[in-house]
Amino acid sequence: MGEFDLIKRYFTAASYSPDVLLGVGDDAAVLDVPADKKLVVAVDTIVAGIHFPMDTSAADIAYRALAVNLSDMAAMGAIPRWFTLSLCLPSANVSWLAEFAASLHALATRYGVQLVGGDTVKGPLNISVQILGLVERDAWLTRSGAHAGDLIMVSGVPGEAAGGLQLLLQAPIAIEEPHRSHLLERFYRPTPRVQLGRTIRHLASAAMDVSDGLLTDLSKLCAASECGARLNLDALPVSAALQAVYGEPAAQQYALFGGDDYELLFTLPRDRLLQLQQVCSELQVACTPIGEVIAGHAVECFRHGEAVVVRGAGYDHFSQDR
Amino acid sequence: MGEFDLIKRYFTAASYSPDVLLGVGDDAAVLDVPADKKLVVAVDTIVAGIHFPMDTSAADIAYRALAVNLSDMAAMGAIPRWFTLSLCLPSANVSWLAEFAASLHALATRYGVQLVGGDTVKGPLNISVQILGLVERDAWLTRSGAHAGDLIMVSGVPGEAAGGLQLLLQAPIAIEEPHRSHLLERFYRPTPRVQLGRTIRHLASAAMDVSDGLLTDLSKLCAASECGARLNLDALPVSAALQAVYGEPAAQQYALFGGDDYELLFTLPRDRLLQLQQVCSELQVACTPIGEVIAGHAVECFRHGEAVVVRGAGYDHFSQDR
Repeated sequence: MGEFDLIKRYFTAASYSPDVLLGVGDDAAVLDVPADKKLVVAVDTIVAGIHFPMDTSAADIAYRALAVNLSDMAAMGAIPRWFTLSLCLPSANVSWLAEFAASLHALATRYGVQLVGGDTVKGPLNISVQILGLVERDAWLTRSGAHAGDLIMVSGVPGEAAGGLQLLLQAPIAIEEPHRSHLLERFYRPTPRVQLGRTIRHLASAAMDVSDGLLTDLSKLCAASECGARLNLDALPVSAALQAVYGEPAAQQYALFGGDDYELLFTLPRDRLLQLQQVCSELQVACTPIGEVIAGHAVECFRHGEAVVVRGAGYDHFSQDR
Repeated sequence: MGEFDLIKRYFTAASYSPDVLLGVGDDAAVLDVPADKKLVVAVDTIVAGIHFPMDTSAADIAYRALAVNLSDMAAMGAIPRWFTLSLCLPSANVSWLAEFAASLHALATRYGVQLVGGDTVKGPLNISVQILGLVERDAWLTRSGAHAGDLIMVSGVPGEAAGGLQLLLQAPIAIEEPHRSHLLERFYRPTPRVQLGRTIRHLASAAMDVSDGLLTDLSKLCAASECGARLNLDALPVSAALQAVYGEPAAQQYALFGGDDYELLFTLPRDRLLQLQQVCSELQVACTPIGEVIAGHAVECFRHGEAVVVRGAGYDHFSQDR
């Protein structure tokens, strides 16, 4: 099967919504952006052996490739709408492709995004998704709007995905269920917080998704907002599964430094906490205040009211090349 | 130097045009699409050792990665406007990155496109560019508008890029200048026909760019338009450099089957030929009638008025996996 046939068979939709004026199969897609919306654009690439173990299933790879991009839309408060796929494959294995495409389309359908273009090339496994979303004029989230006094909030339970990845990387040991399954699910199938992002669009002062680890990403948010942070380690939601598998101190390290969860990290003016809690209750997503934005540039951690130095590192692809 | 610093140093613009509401550095970019335009989206990925020799310079790789995407905009008759870059690198070599970024920005500036987002990851060298352009309502080119009786046209001199690539792949032999430099330049620095695409938007009935070889791509255009083609080999523009280096028969094979030129292949109602010739003269781009669209589905070649069978193959990444 040639490249042209591959693309046609697996990546052409039977039908598109009316805003797709021209879909997969030409030199480019043509899309209709509503006049009352702004276009939001992100790209995220995942590479075999770097972002996921080499033996990850085609279905899980497809899920992750799209989910991390949906998460970027969540962090902006945008509605994900369309995406393109660049798929670099060592060979054209038909059953692998069928599984990949089925998983991709399932997630796309769930989030209302449409595949409108792509490129299939030969080479080491690398999946790049470019996502396009829409947002109301002047109502998107950025990393740069935090102010001293705002609460620092995080959705869900950060660190579980990294704990799941560690299960895959370490020598096999007996891990009790349901902890093992739960942690692996969190690594393989992170939930993009799109609805939460849409909902906090008018509440949060700044937002980003946690991809490289909570403390690393909080530092980026603070740098963009030109502020500091006081993180209360006692308030950090720590996963019961991580505690059971790795013990309390390691569980907190995962919460602080583990990437790959794609939870939302955001800042919130204090007087909006009640409103946020109502929203979270409706969405059934826990959001926890874990500290406060402060003046200056320092990002500091506190335990039992005292400053502590935590050691660890967020994910940085090129850190060893320093 | 970490990933965050890399992106910041090399890929953040000093300033953006007013339609970039939020540029590189957040979870996504926010763009302003004019209400009277449609959005045109394409993605093209190039991989080391597949699309270019492993020892290609960073400057040439950056040029090609963007140029092939600009060419997709040309094929649609669109104005290229913004792009994102996904850069997968084995290591963060600062001088390589500086050279890559300088070349990318130079080409971007020449064509008026702005880098608005990206992702830098570690892995085998792979460069994916997603390009976003604008086109007037109901005035874009597709592959599917050709009608029986239309002329088949090609810009420039197809085949030279493939001839240049062959010089790189074969054992070193003495090739006379300026032919050697000319062919290498055509491979390393294909010219995206953006102005031509914009100009023929109202003249051509169908268009695409030649990336996989003239005959292969003509077959795709015919399939999309549900028509056949009669290609006149006597009319095919054959490169003087290719003839000098490889001889006449091989030169014609390159013209028919060589990819990588990124010339425009388009169809034209006969009564617009004069108008097209005026336009081409103004743009100083040669466009040659090389055959005609016919009813049916056959793509046939003729020499001295007689049907001939030509053998060769266009580029297909996965053809060996059939």
